[in-house]
Amino acid sequence: MSDCVFCKIIEGTIPSSKIYEDDKTVAILNINPVSKGHALILPKKHSTDFLETEDSELQTSIVVVKKVAEAILKATGAAGFNIHVNTKPAAGQEIFHLHYHIIPRYQNDGLKVWPHAEAEPKTREQMAEEIKKFIK
Amino acid sequence: MSDCVFCKIIEGTIPSSKIYEDDKTVAILNINPVSKGHALILPKKHSTDFLETEDSELQTSIVVVKKVAEAILKATGAAGFNIHVNTKPAAGQEIFHLHYHIIPRYQNDGLKVWPHAEAEPKTREQMAEEIKKFIK
Repeated sequence: MSDCVFCKIIEGTIPSSKIYEDDKTVAILNINPVSKGHALILPKKHSTDFLETEDSELQTSIVVVKKVAEAILKATGAAGFNIHVNTKPAAGQEIFHLHYHIIPRYQNDGLKVWPHAEAEPKTREQMAEEIKKFIK
Repeated sequence: MSDCVFCKIIEGTIPSSKIYEDDKTVAILNINPVSKGHALILPKKHSTDFLETEDSELQTSIVVVKKVAEAILKATGAAGFNIHVNTKPAAGQEIFHLHYHIIPRYQNDGLKVWPHAEAEPKTREQMAEEIKKFIK
């Protein structure tokens, strides 16, 4: 798409630090990293977000996520990583072209995941029933 | 695996709030949700983490992530969601059976993603070169 930053990065009209490219996928380093080696995996075919992406495209890109994550661990010495996808603005999505974050994690790096709350079991059962209605 | 909590949930020997099941994948609600409708997608075949999972298994489960996320948005009225995978203890992984978190997000829910830092471009280029060496 002509006004999409990631499409321009994929085309090369905006510079980036590419770490991987094949015919369907590109991986770059995030210019605002959460941690050293923070990368983004971008399918070349434009789709606005995870839900708008065809299953076959998701299947192609998830394998690249694994391939690149393995290399990042070796290159950085990170002890683990998070994969993170933000879908829709309420979830923090800022660029509307599907991308997976690979966030390398280091021992005692101080990054905190979101606080979990205890769900009351009855509420959980009710919620489960509600969701099941909408799964085809 | 006999000592794996998620294998026991999949087999049904530990109770759970299942929201989806097919021959290869199960989805349950998280007992410690970050937000209302927080679900976990579990491949039935045991693998300790994302990196230890065969590509074909990743390709099967990522399609279920999409299917279940769509249903959660409809059931909860959430405005978006995060997909989150923790790989290795340093990344917050606590149960060593691959699982994807689907975390529904609501307008102004106050959940914060990790702070980003500005990377110095030269450092980024050096990091990119380092990672590229390790990608087959």
